[in-house]
Amino acid sequence: MDEIRFAVLGTGGIGRRTLEVSTYRDGLTPVAACDRHGVAIDHDGLDVDELLAATEGNIASDGGVTRVKETGEQKGVAASTQADQTATPIDDIIAESDAVDAVLIALPNFEHEFIPKVADRFVEADYSGVLVDVLKRSRVIGMLDERADAFAECGLTFVCGAGATPGLLTGAAALAAQSFVEVEAVDIWWGVGLKSGYEDNRGTVREDIAHLPDYDLETVREMGDGEIEAVIDAHDGVLEFHDMEHADDVLLERAGICEAADVTVGGVLDVTSDEKPTTTTVRVTGTTFDGERGTNTVELDDDTSMAANVNGPALGYLKSAVRRHRAGEYGVFGPAELLPRF
Amino acid sequence: MDEIRFAVLGTGGIGRRTLEVSTYRDGLTPVAACDRHGVAIDHDGLDVDELLAATEGNIASDGGVTRVKETGEQKGVAASTQADQTATPIDDIIAESDAVDAVLIALPNFEHEFIPKVADRFVEADYSGVLVDVLKRSRVIGMLDERADAFAECGLTFVCGAGATPGLLTGAAALAAQSFVEVEAVDIWWGVGLKSGYEDNRGTVREDIAHLPDYDLETVREMGDGEIEAVIDAHDGVLEFHDMEHADDVLLERAGICEAADVTVGGVLDVTSDEKPTTTTVRVTGTTFDGERGTNTVELDDDTSMAANVNGPALGYLKSAVRRHRAGEYGVFGPAELLPRF
Repeated sequence: MDEIRFAVLGTGGIGRRTLEVSTYRDGLTPVAACDRHGVAIDHDGLDVDELLAATEGNIASDGGVTRVKETGEQKGVAASTQADQTATPIDDIIAESDAVDAVLIALPNFEHEFIPKVADRFVEADYSGVLVDVLKRSRVIGMLDERADAFAECGLTFVCGAGATPGLLTGAAALAAQSFVEVEAVDIWWGVGLKSGYEDNRGTVREDIAHLPDYDLETVREMGDGEIEAVIDAHDGVLEFHDMEHADDVLLERAGICEAADVTVGGVLDVTSDEKPTTTTVRVTGTTFDGERGTNTVELDDDTSMAANVNGPALGYLKSAVRRHRAGEYGVFGPAELLPRF
Repeated sequence: MDEIRFAVLGTGGIGRRTLEVSTYRDGLTPVAACDRHGVAIDHDGLDVDELLAATEGNIASDGGVTRVKETGEQKGVAASTQADQTATPIDDIIAESDAVDAVLIALPNFEHEFIPKVADRFVEADYSGVLVDVLKRSRVIGMLDERADAFAECGLTFVCGAGATPGLLTGAAALAAQSFVEVEAVDIWWGVGLKSGYEDNRGTVREDIAHLPDYDLETVREMGDGEIEAVIDAHDGVLEFHDMEHADDVLLERAGICEAADVTVGGVLDVTSDEKPTTTTVRVTGTTFDGERGTNTVELDDDTSMAANVNGPALGYLKSAVRRHRAGEYGVFGPAELLPRF
């Protein structure tokens, strides 16, 4: 595969780790990265080490409203010697997008429409390339689907939900389903130990809390950091989730594997330890053509971090998406419709 | 996806079960099937139930040289009311191939060059469509690759090794690898219980025996059925295999996952029981970007038969291949380069 030049929108935990992982993969050149106050663009390839060092701690922790942590003399990306301060970071990257094959959207997604609206800006600029996100929420997939014609018109290939779950685990479920002629249940159960990674993943933790009983995205969005901490403390740092709204359901239905209602997602988040509190597992239960009922199982090693399981697949799906795009396939794709390339 | 019209070459265990499984899947219409003496073609769709009933026991058991079991008054496929006797079954299907989107090659593959040479006949006829096989042997992939330009020229998309292993398990390994930045080992271990399916799968068993110490494909090919039985009896019907030549190795290397030498395939075949003698498992061991070493694991339920795990994925990969073909992607692809569609 020819070299892929890609941009990252957002340099929180996911954006920064994706840049880092890309340095281990063949054929990927990061050419642009931004946060709300800065943009770094180098079509010959960014110096990822320098950018990561400069942006250490660059996390929107309060819902993306006000605060970006600082290192160096400027805030966030702008602290990098490769970057410029800007009030229009996404527009700056769109302006250079003729030379960008793919864009990973790693922005905190507090409003449902946020990522779809980012996509709209690329459509307005008539961007012909790939957009990839690692979103979790089922309802956003429908919002993207409403834009499928617009994407097709400008030659845009959008791969949604391409992280760990949905993403890696959705793809695993689609594969594991192939033994069966009818799938009755897909059960996804994840474990995340996030002690040292907590600061880098506050947005993710906040979004997870929205899945607890008595909370939703709206209430969580208006909670201050202190209130979030209080919820975590009330659970002694270990939060268990059931029946989460994770887009694995609609993405597996799109791929024809099963009904969305047959998919359940839950898990345990432990912010007091880096050890996983439970093993991340996908169980696909179905009936074979010869009438047997069985459950195929995929387990991720407890020593693979959430970051490893989000960013590797995100880049794998990005590579697949570029291939689809180069073959002229535009529109919206889920992970189960694409196998990530290594 | 639009309807896919497909043909099956060979109505042994794999060909017949693939026809059967296709009746459970959406969007697949079997329009042609053949064995050495008969061909059935119906562009409106074959009556699979009738064809299967007519061809029950239609297995080449001696290396494909002389004998086809009989039911009804004629041999094999020709016993079907939908079929005609023929001396040129593959040519007959090639003659109709303008109306065939994909061809599953489910022929016994006793010579390494056999499947590549079948492909050559489709190239000579300038077939623009999909060929899928479920071959196992690594060295055949290279022979297909030598033909990649010829495939590209006539617009042919060839997906090789698209059964259980290679196939389902190769794809699972490629997905499980996404957690890592470096993969050090892929270990594939399969269990097959084949008591009731033994008659239908003599070709597969024969090929497996070629992997035992002191045997190879040439010696096995010249062995009579009695000699094969004697080998099985000497092992009390339970044969254990190590370091098999399975194309998972070269297919994972093609996809950039690891070196072929890092892939090992082994397993246990029990022809005395339908219970699997060991659980089919894929273990992918690697190092994450954050320096952890781990093993992701995929396990197939012991109640999923070999047939279920070959034919479901074969049809899934066939669907993926048709999609690639329709997008204008021609040449040779391995499973890890395509996610099977359900």
